[in-house]
Amino acid sequence: MSGFMYYTPTKVVFGKDAEAQVGALVAEQNARKVLLHHGGGSVVKSGLLNRVKASLTEAGVDFIELGGAVPNPRLSLVYRGIELCRSEDVDFLLAVGGGSTVDSAKAIAFGAAEDGDVWDLFDRKRQATACLPVGVVLTLAATGSEMSDSTVITNEDGWIKRGYGSNLCRPVFAVMNPDLTKTLPDYQTACGCTDILMHTMERYFVSVPRLELTDSIAEALMRTVIHYAGVLKNDPQNDRARAEIMWAGSLSHNDLTGSRANGGADFSSHALEHELGGVYDVAHGAGLAAVWGSWARYVYRDCLPRFKKFAVRVMGVAETGTDEEIALKGIEAMEGFFRSIGMPISLAELGIHPTDEELKQLAHKCSVSAGGAKGSAKVLHEADMLAIYRMAL
Amino acid sequence: MSGFMYYTPTKVVFGKDAEAQVGALVAEQNARKVLLHHGGGSVVKSGLLNRVKASLTEAGVDFIELGGAVPNPRLSLVYRGIELCRSEDVDFLLAVGGGSTVDSAKAIAFGAAEDGDVWDLFDRKRQATACLPVGVVLTLAATGSEMSDSTVITNEDGWIKRGYGSNLCRPVFAVMNPDLTKTLPDYQTACGCTDILMHTMERYFVSVPRLELTDSIAEALMRTVIHYAGVLKNDPQNDRARAEIMWAGSLSHNDLTGSRANGGADFSSHALEHELGGVYDVAHGAGLAAVWGSWARYVYRDCLPRFKKFAVRVMGVAETGTDEEIALKGIEAMEGFFRSIGMPISLAELGIHPTDEELKQLAHKCSVSAGGAKGSAKVLHEADMLAIYRMAL
Repeated sequence: MSGFMYYTPTKVVFGKDAEAQVGALVAEQNARKVLLHHGGGSVVKSGLLNRVKASLTEAGVDFIELGGAVPNPRLSLVYRGIELCRSEDVDFLLAVGGGSTVDSAKAIAFGAAEDGDVWDLFDRKRQATACLPVGVVLTLAATGSEMSDSTVITNEDGWIKRGYGSNLCRPVFAVMNPDLTKTLPDYQTACGCTDILMHTMERYFVSVPRLELTDSIAEALMRTVIHYAGVLKNDPQNDRARAEIMWAGSLSHNDLTGSRANGGADFSSHALEHELGGVYDVAHGAGLAAVWGSWARYVYRDCLPRFKKFAVRVMGVAETGTDEEIALKGIEAMEGFFRSIGMPISLAELGIHPTDEELKQLAHKCSVSAGGAKGSAKVLHEADMLAIYRMAL
Repeated sequence: MSGFMYYTPTKVVFGKDAEAQVGALVAEQNARKVLLHHGGGSVVKSGLLNRVKASLTEAGVDFIELGGAVPNPRLSLVYRGIELCRSEDVDFLLAVGGGSTVDSAKAIAFGAAEDGDVWDLFDRKRQATACLPVGVVLTLAATGSEMSDSTVITNEDGWIKRGYGSNLCRPVFAVMNPDLTKTLPDYQTACGCTDILMHTMERYFVSVPRLELTDSIAEALMRTVIHYAGVLKNDPQNDRARAEIMWAGSLSHNDLTGSRANGGADFSSHALEHELGGVYDVAHGAGLAAVWGSWARYVYRDCLPRFKKFAVRVMGVAETGTDEEIALKGIEAMEGFFRSIGMPISLAELGIHPTDEELKQLAHKCSVSAGGAKGSAKVLHEADMLAIYRMAL
């Protein structure tokens, strides 16, 4: 068996009213000064931000505030956050919001901990050697950033969306109250469920050996998410479903369902979507659903045993017919699931209609950002990426 | 849903020859002086201890050595370790061995970090507020101590075996090379598989609500352990099975399969076994197998839905007949599994034949150590414990 590293230091406090504990959790970290980062909007309207501030004040924590985090978080705001950290001597980042806010906070934390342009990390010019500690109050179950080692930022200069990963930015704590996710629009809930599924699927469809234990945990997680995403479609306030999905969001991307290192994950669908998200400002989960089926049809013959196993064990496809037929039925079943929760399965359904020239640019940027090639189920080069984008139209 | 805390800070380095990284892992912790703790015996014979020392020396780590850790680790050795830490200014514990060595190292780490008698922790007289960091090179897949928050020590004065739990003693790293477990006697391998299963079963049979995600992960883990324990029975050198079981050992007891806090775990079988282990020096896993079936038959009516779910989803029992019949078939199937890997399912098969007076003493000690009552599937008092011991004869 190939080896792996597993490192999930994040202290998770999960359950009703968990946000009341945030002050104590920050105080435990002995922070001098905290930058409270959020997106404004719903965290203000819902009263969450005030509850968090009250908890910090009660615990005697000194903090300043930076709002304005947006989906596909922007480099310009990251730069502003870094300046603020320097001028105000901040040594702890507290993100209150969804994955975008967490990613934005992580990028600020990298930038504030070292000299040099933080974009160099995303641009693969250097590796981080330090990062301020980050804590999270999560309001949206989707990206798994609350336990993951990664952050994705969009550089407005060229609208380039890039990820960077390092164990240094795994949050020190994550406060998760499933009730907070109940105010999300249904479309965002479905996008989140899709993103959660995809974080495990990206790890599942690989060409390297995996433990059966890891496979069976991944399959259990995928079946659970598929089931409760369906429950939320019909009953968005369902307590159990909100809790199941929120915890699945963290476990799906903290490497429990597969180590990302050493080819242990594919992440081609993510790479293809990231280029779309950089240019079109589409919801990440919807973008993933829009490209996944085309990616799967393009690569499944190169990773047939795993597509077959997925079809049978996760999608409940009967083991009759050839392996290819079973694998294709699994792909169809997953697309059927995406449709059932209101997700697009093509770029047209996503609401975008790129020209072939635009697809070529997307494929080129995707290939460059991946260092020329990407994937484990099948290694994709620029021409493959273009072919998948064309299939996805 | 009830809330939980999840905290697994241990950095796991898993795979072939992983022990070569131990020097670098300790150096990362900036330790001044390390106490290298082990049991002598097999770690010396196999050459592992020399490889670990070479790795430490190569990394420039200063260390002293304390051998002598034994199964059901003893308080007297813990005291010796604490004195050594104080006289030698030790600030890091490195355990090389199985769960007993890790538990022994954790107890030393508690004792060396604070004034006062470390046994007070196990005797429920105070809570720990500090613990030296502990690292692990694991040679045996069983107790899960390499990621858990607990340590179990036997006080030779009265042969009292007690556990203590605190997040403070979760190891900072665990090096896991499945090859190292290949030299174990088959009986010890089977004992380890039993202990691993039991750590998840103790969390599964509870009366508090659990997430379906947690249940499905727990069931996946139990099925995997049952399968690969069978593989190892016939093929002890099987690489895949050794790896599956070793990783399952960590995940089974790090709270992924259920939070121990707030009644989220039962651990009555462990409590019943601990008293046996304190007096008779039996192998922990074998002791668990010897009492589990009697415990299950005593409590299953009070926790029927979960015993039924276990029977169907883990043991593959058909859903025909009454819930009680299905639950009982599940218990029988688990006992059949224990038998199939050479584990005892009674005290007689375990090789001990206590008098009724001795059983009464065991039940009394068990009740006292549990603060009068124990359990979640069904809360057990002294009379219940005695009844179960009698059933287990």
